[in-house]
Amino acid sequence: MSAQPLPTEPHSFDDDPAFRLHRGGKLEMRSTIPVRDADDLSLAYTPGVARVCTAIAERPELAYDYTWTSKVVAVVTDGTAVLGLGDIGPAASMPVMEGKSLLFKEFAGVDSVPIALSCTDTDEIVDTVIRMAPSFGGINLEDISAPRCFEIEDRLRAALDIPVFHDDQHGTAIVALAALKSAARLVGRPLSDLRAVVAGAGASGIAVSKILIEAGIGDIALSDSKGLIYEGRDGLNPIKQQIAAITNRSLLKGSTEEALRGADVFIGLSGSTVQEASIATMSDDAIVFALSNPTPEVHPEVARRHARVVATGRSDYPNQINNVLAFPGIFRGALDVRAHSITEGMKLAAASALADIVGEDLSPDYVIPNPFDERVAPAVTAAVAAQARAEGVNRI
Amino acid sequence: MSAQPLPTEPHSFDDDPAFRLHRGGKLEMRSTIPVRDADDLSLAYTPGVARVCTAIAERPELAYDYTWTSKVVAVVTDGTAVLGLGDIGPAASMPVMEGKSLLFKEFAGVDSVPIALSCTDTDEIVDTVIRMAPSFGGINLEDISAPRCFEIEDRLRAALDIPVFHDDQHGTAIVALAALKSAARLVGRPLSDLRAVVAGAGASGIAVSKILIEAGIGDIALSDSKGLIYEGRDGLNPIKQQIAAITNRSLLKGSTEEALRGADVFIGLSGSTVQEASIATMSDDAIVFALSNPTPEVHPEVARRHARVVATGRSDYPNQINNVLAFPGIFRGALDVRAHSITEGMKLAAASALADIVGEDLSPDYVIPNPFDERVAPAVTAAVAAQARAEGVNRI
Repeated sequence: MSAQPLPTEPHSFDDDPAFRLHRGGKLEMRSTIPVRDADDLSLAYTPGVARVCTAIAERPELAYDYTWTSKVVAVVTDGTAVLGLGDIGPAASMPVMEGKSLLFKEFAGVDSVPIALSCTDTDEIVDTVIRMAPSFGGINLEDISAPRCFEIEDRLRAALDIPVFHDDQHGTAIVALAALKSAARLVGRPLSDLRAVVAGAGASGIAVSKILIEAGIGDIALSDSKGLIYEGRDGLNPIKQQIAAITNRSLLKGSTEEALRGADVFIGLSGSTVQEASIATMSDDAIVFALSNPTPEVHPEVARRHARVVATGRSDYPNQINNVLAFPGIFRGALDVRAHSITEGMKLAAASALADIVGEDLSPDYVIPNPFDERVAPAVTAAVAAQARAEGVNRI
Repeated sequence: MSAQPLPTEPHSFDDDPAFRLHRGGKLEMRSTIPVRDADDLSLAYTPGVARVCTAIAERPELAYDYTWTSKVVAVVTDGTAVLGLGDIGPAASMPVMEGKSLLFKEFAGVDSVPIALSCTDTDEIVDTVIRMAPSFGGINLEDISAPRCFEIEDRLRAALDIPVFHDDQHGTAIVALAALKSAARLVGRPLSDLRAVVAGAGASGIAVSKILIEAGIGDIALSDSKGLIYEGRDGLNPIKQQIAAITNRSLLKGSTEEALRGADVFIGLSGSTVQEASIATMSDDAIVFALSNPTPEVHPEVARRHARVVATGRSDYPNQINNVLAFPGIFRGALDVRAHSITEGMKLAAASALADIVGEDLSPDYVIPNPFDERVAPAVTAAVAAQARAEGVNRI
């Protein structure tokens, strides 16, 4: 992220508050029960523990009540698509994975364990996660590059009967949908009226497009580095073929910027740049979500000259689209009802819950709650749990 | 462990204090830093975390300072040899693995994560642990059945440059050696004078025999379910062939009990029974470690009629041979110096440190410290770290 040379000594690293804070890591494991004497030991460990093991061996569902398995999520990465840094490998990804674990705990009391894998082969990742799954109540996939991330998530969802959720796809999609629902309400138009352009066809671009279609958006066109994606374009990979079949119904071709002419919504998830002149060609009451981090596709103050609503991924401007609004409550809700999976319905319910929090305070600078709004995680948790029960994917 | 039928309702399970204590599991993950506001978030997560990731990508050794990886141990099992319960599978093994994590933390401040695997194939276990290894500073293998446990440990030790330690082998071996050193001192004989019989050729029987040979015991004979193991016996698996080549130099054949005639030391790790009459045929000042749990091979009060020193695995009799005396300090010491591995020398140093704690208080009822003796973990930690440095397997 920085072109400056790294300092050479640990003590000079610690001049940077981020390094100071990371010294020794950000997590610790704690026991929830005391071990003061031989009596405590004989219950928490041998011989008392043997009775609990025997009971679970005979009735596996007792593991939910008498182990921590059902309350702990694995945060799994292969380090290939870490933030905007790309393929930096498993060791270097750990600060992000620890950060994710920290957010799970702080925002929704979800215990989680960062697992950074040294393999990048799809089969190997799938096999490894399946083998370690008995230790966990859910799997949060993180920072795995596209297109492997789609197949890995699909295969794990099929193989496991615990929630599997690729946050880079669905976390972003849920929060973007919530913000767009609020923005559409602000401009007084139903989603089905809106035409959107999404720059970027990686994990989040694909997932955002899919959830907007599920939510009933009018039309949506995606672009990748070669321009707009349309049905029949040469050289599309299977994921892009799939998305081409359900998006861009007017078969627009050319650049993102050309597609913006008259469009109602722009969502940037590409790390590229969009000119002010192109934003100016969008419809009245345009909605611009420039979500690349740390540099949005268009500066929010520039976009604001032409758009009614502007959102970014940054905390220093209004309307921050931040995954932390979704994933803690989503897993909390899924774990609370011991859900077999996180369904499309549960994702839509989470987005609605987020949009509902905005309520009467809706304004151009407030289409999505602040990450530190304490109503968020409980609302998402409740909506996700209720939807799981409504769909019958719950165990309790 | 119990032939009684299990109660049918959760509330009746909770009449048992072991179940009450296990409700909700025994572990939780905590963050070590606060996340109160957007400023905290921008250091612990994006954008600040990116600087730490970039630094580690350029200089991998910085992961030791700025992640929790270097301080956390994976407690890995496949659930095939859990306590005396045998192959109960990964889910039912979790209470034991959580217990192990709890003991790591309570006795030596070592963070650890229980990982119960759904695979039992040697290649699959080895591959899986190698793939998850970037997330951990050490691997504690636990309750994996023999003979697979030997190959799994050997291959992981060769593949990884972090400590790999199969506690069922080496934890038991280290504590048994420490107790035997003290017992030998009590009876005034050097180890090299003693002839030992070990009942049981599983993980712990093999490991105890190996460490006693390293420590210089006179001779040692192992038995399995077919009787004494001797060089050339038909049908020995490779591990038993290996051990036959270095034990039982007088090529004794027949039963464990026959071998006890005139023997100085008996170590039971078999779950079988030894008659009082056989103990009575041992030499003067006999040493009996009847370590099977919960039922020792011979009742300690019965053994005491004929033996000078008796030890068991039980907390309700003197001289408890408990792995918790070893593994927390061993990993603490290895992690503290960022050791590449846990060497034979480090294991012997741990045993000496344990024996030294007994010191002048040595008596027939005190050949090994109590698990709650607060001198234990610091002494083992210091001895293991010093030995790692002496052998140059340390990084700091």
